[in-house]
Amino acid sequence: MSTKKTRLFAYRYKQNQLTILDQTRLPNKATYLQLKTYQQIIAAIKELKIRGAPLIGVAGAYGLALASLKKPLNYRSYLRKVANEIKSARPTAVNLSWAIDRLLPIINNPKISGNELSGALISEAIKIERTEQDNSYRIGKIGAQLIKDNMTILTICNTGWLAVPGIGTALGIIYTAHRQGKNLKVYVLETRPLLQGARLTAFELAQAKIPYTLITDSMIGSVMSKVNVVLVGADRIARNGDTANKIGTLTLAITAHYYQVPFYVVAPFSSFDLSIKSGKEIIIEERDKKEILYFQNHLIAPKQTNIYNPAFDITSSKLITGIITEKGIIYPPYIKNIRKWF
Amino acid sequence: MSTKKTRLFAYRYKQNQLTILDQTRLPNKATYLQLKTYQQIIAAIKELKIRGAPLIGVAGAYGLALASLKKPLNYRSYLRKVANEIKSARPTAVNLSWAIDRLLPIINNPKISGNELSGALISEAIKIERTEQDNSYRIGKIGAQLIKDNMTILTICNTGWLAVPGIGTALGIIYTAHRQGKNLKVYVLETRPLLQGARLTAFELAQAKIPYTLITDSMIGSVMSKVNVVLVGADRIARNGDTANKIGTLTLAITAHYYQVPFYVVAPFSSFDLSIKSGKEIIIEERDKKEILYFQNHLIAPKQTNIYNPAFDITSSKLITGIITEKGIIYPPYIKNIRKWF
Repeated sequence: MSTKKTRLFAYRYKQNQLTILDQTRLPNKATYLQLKTYQQIIAAIKELKIRGAPLIGVAGAYGLALASLKKPLNYRSYLRKVANEIKSARPTAVNLSWAIDRLLPIINNPKISGNELSGALISEAIKIERTEQDNSYRIGKIGAQLIKDNMTILTICNTGWLAVPGIGTALGIIYTAHRQGKNLKVYVLETRPLLQGARLTAFELAQAKIPYTLITDSMIGSVMSKVNVVLVGADRIARNGDTANKIGTLTLAITAHYYQVPFYVVAPFSSFDLSIKSGKEIIIEERDKKEILYFQNHLIAPKQTNIYNPAFDITSSKLITGIITEKGIIYPPYIKNIRKWF
Repeated sequence: MSTKKTRLFAYRYKQNQLTILDQTRLPNKATYLQLKTYQQIIAAIKELKIRGAPLIGVAGAYGLALASLKKPLNYRSYLRKVANEIKSARPTAVNLSWAIDRLLPIINNPKISGNELSGALISEAIKIERTEQDNSYRIGKIGAQLIKDNMTILTICNTGWLAVPGIGTALGIIYTAHRQGKNLKVYVLETRPLLQGARLTAFELAQAKIPYTLITDSMIGSVMSKVNVVLVGADRIARNGDTANKIGTLTLAITAHYYQVPFYVVAPFSSFDLSIKSGKEIIIEERDKKEILYFQNHLIAPKQTNIYNPAFDITSSKLITGIITEKGIIYPPYIKNIRKWF
């Protein structure tokens, strides 16, 4: 997505280190960080320096691979401990657990010797990354079939190459439709409190020269009658289709429903969690009140203010028109149709 | 509402000047500004140093009264020109026109001499202020009847003593119910882009020691199932009940409707505009893109970003449970019932 001049990338694994673009400093500064230990990767995930459900899955896998370069006594139990630490870096996105669960059978396989383990984990992490990249291009193509010329699309948070290996999920569809020559108009929700829409999605779209209009999250109702389709990402999708995604998604889905605007969740299969029946079982990460109370160093409310800061909300599958995946679009009834694909 | 220690007030007219609390600097600084000319009052209204539909109505009236202290040639036509200038300081809130329209008959009355005019205008402005104050207490009492012990109330923007002469509209009901000894929990929407909820409503509630929780506008969907009633203010109410209010109100009304939570508009009769049939005729003020693009001096999106910044939205009367006024609560069908009260 990046222009040739800037050659930006969200992350790169090479020579036993994960280089990431520090997303907390965008759009004002493009700063790269070299992460050499799994602890640094966990910290970067917690501090949202690297973010996006599919991307933190891949970063977590590389974290476990990096940890395996060190070979303490009780090597395999050390790796299992690290695996658990990485899994719990952020609780809501299932992709982190999903990626680590792809590596655990390697650690637990007695046929793979201690000397081979690190190489096997790195290979598998690279495979996960490549598969997720491919999936994003597939999702882009499948989703772009829904996008007609001159459509207005509304999206929340950031779901592009900064969030997903490859081109993104919801934003990947926008990129693909744009490359197909379709004229698009994109409404970008700024996405409080951390402004991933304003800072990251606007940044990506500006680079790609796709016309967009930034609005506050409170303007959903004002613009919805002009919107043809809403595209959002996902952090975890339950067996019945209930979807955890960035805070604000539920309000967006309710408003789209009121205006009868199609509302699509866009996510790879790594975002599904078939172990849970509905959204009620999804743990919602609550983050520090400072994220709302302060903007940069400016206090925006009385210091003693009580604050509720859930990073995600759960959108009932009743409000979801379809789920766009790398294998196709899943439509209701989700409880029946999601299972079919697994 | 202010504590005895701080003795804060939103505005005070005395000795030919309007002293106002600069609301753009709250909650961090309580700075008072002395406004001596109508031009200073218009500037303060445009820059939101003084705000809130009922309050800018009164400030506008004092502006015209102040202008009348100067007596140029063509005194009356000068005053009519000033009246128009003040009316157009902000287009959406009808209270500004309403208050000025109360003063125009005095200017146009040939029985009032040039020497008497200024005194008559000041008297009428004071009368408007006192009436609006009384109305706020009446609204508080009428609305508080709807509030039961242990209710959770959600509100947007600021509608307290910083916005309305007296105790406020929506917030005035909360103050009144609190004084009646009812336990309340209040969700305060931060109200982007200018954060009147975080900066002003949280500030008022903290001073009044009423428990509140600040949330971003995107969290409406997350908390609505815990909310018993939504109370909002109004900038202009059409003949059919359609209501212009702070941007975000429409999304809030749609979400309340989805969860079947009662949604009340709270406003004095000075906020009604019977000259218009529906919300479609209400002019929505669009404000500078900098309000969204910059936070303090921090750029939050790429500089070239296209931005849509409507300060208000229109909530269809279909989504409004009732309109709480100083004379009573108006229920649907509004087209019939609003007229009855005039």
